[in-house]
Amino acid sequence: MPSLSERADYMPASPIRKLVPYAEQARKKGVDVIHLNIGQPDIQTPAVALAAIRSFDEKVIEYSHSAGDFSYREKLTRYYKSVGVNITPEDIIVTTGGSEAILFAMMVCMNPGDEVLVPEPFYANYNGFAAEAGIVIKPVRSVIDNDFALPGMDYFEQCITEKTKAVFICNPNNPTGYLYSKEEMMQLRDIVKKHDLFLFCDEVYREFCYDDHEFFSCLSLTGVDEHVVLIDSVSKRYSMCGVRLGALISRNKRIIDAALKLGQARLCPPHLAQVAATAALDAPESYFEAVKNEYLLRRNYLVTALNEIPGVYCPMPKGAFYTIVQLPVDDADRFAQWLLEDFSFNNRTVMVAPASGFYATEGLGRNQIRVAYVIDIDDLKTAVACLRKALEVYNSSR
Amino acid sequence: MPSLSERADYMPASPIRKLVPYAEQARKKGVDVIHLNIGQPDIQTPAVALAAIRSFDEKVIEYSHSAGDFSYREKLTRYYKSVGVNITPEDIIVTTGGSEAILFAMMVCMNPGDEVLVPEPFYANYNGFAAEAGIVIKPVRSVIDNDFALPGMDYFEQCITEKTKAVFICNPNNPTGYLYSKEEMMQLRDIVKKHDLFLFCDEVYREFCYDDHEFFSCLSLTGVDEHVVLIDSVSKRYSMCGVRLGALISRNKRIIDAALKLGQARLCPPHLAQVAATAALDAPESYFEAVKNEYLLRRNYLVTALNEIPGVYCPMPKGAFYTIVQLPVDDADRFAQWLLEDFSFNNRTVMVAPASGFYATEGLGRNQIRVAYVIDIDDLKTAVACLRKALEVYNSSR
Repeated sequence: MPSLSERADYMPASPIRKLVPYAEQARKKGVDVIHLNIGQPDIQTPAVALAAIRSFDEKVIEYSHSAGDFSYREKLTRYYKSVGVNITPEDIIVTTGGSEAILFAMMVCMNPGDEVLVPEPFYANYNGFAAEAGIVIKPVRSVIDNDFALPGMDYFEQCITEKTKAVFICNPNNPTGYLYSKEEMMQLRDIVKKHDLFLFCDEVYREFCYDDHEFFSCLSLTGVDEHVVLIDSVSKRYSMCGVRLGALISRNKRIIDAALKLGQARLCPPHLAQVAATAALDAPESYFEAVKNEYLLRRNYLVTALNEIPGVYCPMPKGAFYTIVQLPVDDADRFAQWLLEDFSFNNRTVMVAPASGFYATEGLGRNQIRVAYVIDIDDLKTAVACLRKALEVYNSSR
Repeated sequence: MPSLSERADYMPASPIRKLVPYAEQARKKGVDVIHLNIGQPDIQTPAVALAAIRSFDEKVIEYSHSAGDFSYREKLTRYYKSVGVNITPEDIIVTTGGSEAILFAMMVCMNPGDEVLVPEPFYANYNGFAAEAGIVIKPVRSVIDNDFALPGMDYFEQCITEKTKAVFICNPNNPTGYLYSKEEMMQLRDIVKKHDLFLFCDEVYREFCYDDHEFFSCLSLTGVDEHVVLIDSVSKRYSMCGVRLGALISRNKRIIDAALKLGQARLCPPHLAQVAATAALDAPESYFEAVKNEYLLRRNYLVTALNEIPGVYCPMPKGAFYTIVQLPVDDADRFAQWLLEDFSFNNRTVMVAPASGFYATEGLGRNQIRVAYVIDIDDLKTAVACLRKALEVYNSSR
């Protein structure tokens, strides 16, 4: 029997995959599992998008353009203009989710064996795309004591080798909720200019910045048009994760030309998704205000309540809808499994994502979890009560 | 400025990409361009699928399962049973088009540098996926004089090296329209068993087999469950190319487990596509009968009419909706460009795909084109009249 490829063997499983059977077991025992682990928002998709789907009147669902429908790309440029970014439809390759944009960026800009610097902890699926592209993720450590701010210039430069080809950030950050400031973005600009690197920026949580923190896009950086690749997605912006529509955006024509060839190989991004996303661009400002307010309320409740639990530390995230939480446990993987396998409180328990899966450096994040505040505030309250009780029981029993 | 990757440089452009500007020029001059080059059918998507989209009533377009919705996979198994193939929902990874299934198969089964044997001419986009996966396509020549039948066992074995890891066929074939017989499939079985290779079969045109020719699926082969990977798509079956939904199917659990990890990295296949495809499975038998009859009429007209043009030879395709046509010209690339740039007949001209782009061996297919019969019969008649006239003019002028 022929053997599989090496990349198939070292493709990492998702950080919560091994917990899924335990969650199923818990449910079978009649325990209600509250999900703090997931990134699937409960927020409604804009009504205009749903209406566009329901009034779909084409007779043949045809291929669209490999770079995405021109009308959609044209409309997208107006959206970017509204957030202060000037681009043309020709700077955009519409992709199948932000996922495909990540893969295209890696495939187009990096050779197998090349290294990309990524502040850790980072979105675990970057590992999967790196494995597919044959490239190596070199983590640049950010720390919870500093709320996961961008590591300093010196530390970044220490991590650069002759194999380094790019820096990759997620801003606002999944899993930390950290929002990189304009000054931090300028630092990244200096690094990529000085060392002739690409800068990949995953900005899919752009809409979700809280308090008075301003979002500063990589495409607002000057003098690095040839270096910057923006990765975007409509998944979180319009709470339509399932449509699978994103974009790779760059002012570097060579990147766009090469990404288009990858786009032509796979023919086109999904058409119905473009119908929905084109309409979603007309969602009223009030939609975003309501969504942002909802996330803000949840964040404020959750972070405050978590910090009130003895031994727990949770930074106040400035964006996205995740945060990393430090727990008074020595092994959050074991604790997360125990929550599902051996614990319940009022017949409920909590599923969390152990943070170790978001670190590339072995041993980091062992006492941390990632939580998402994409469930309603009553469920968050129940979850926090559960977690408080669980930590008491867990720690008293050892 | 940082340089792009080597794979970006050698990603092949689509065979017709360089003709697109000439087609635009022709249209600007007021010439009507009839498309024999494309694979976008004019056939209507089943009404049940369109109705399902229009009655979409979810409030949040959520992620689906990374392997595709279980309910869709379950329903798919009934479809496969109806075509004589027994599989379970666990044997299926729903993909974003057949395209993603091809990429997953290559990524999971082959290491960079490994070789896959593909009868040429072959679907040109295989080159793109091979470049992404870092693998090497080794063509196994099939010839028009033999209507592109499967090359013999001896010839296949001559092409096998220590790097060979898989055989890849498209059945019925794009671009030749050839349908591999049961005997030819058995030959492939013998080869992959004897040499411990994977067998990738792209069967996206399964529904379109003509006359009394019976389709024989790779999944009907016995004794090679660990070797066979089926690549499928709903694009052509239901004329919904734009939804982007396919499947990778294998009874080899290790392949499925590894493909699922790739699937988890990109989260899920498009949800709205699954809504449409789930409904499309209820399309009545009469839908397929009508579509097949339409293609049959077109094929019979087109192939007969082309063979009546002096110097033209066109095999009678047994399946799909393409055929390779041999023309009395020395350079079909140049002829195809000339058709758009310098020729018109009654203010019309024809766009064809030069066959050279479907061959990996330099110099082959130089006097051949691929045509698709996915336009209505009146347009086919006009196209053939144009082509006949064009060949007269082209050959008398040199």
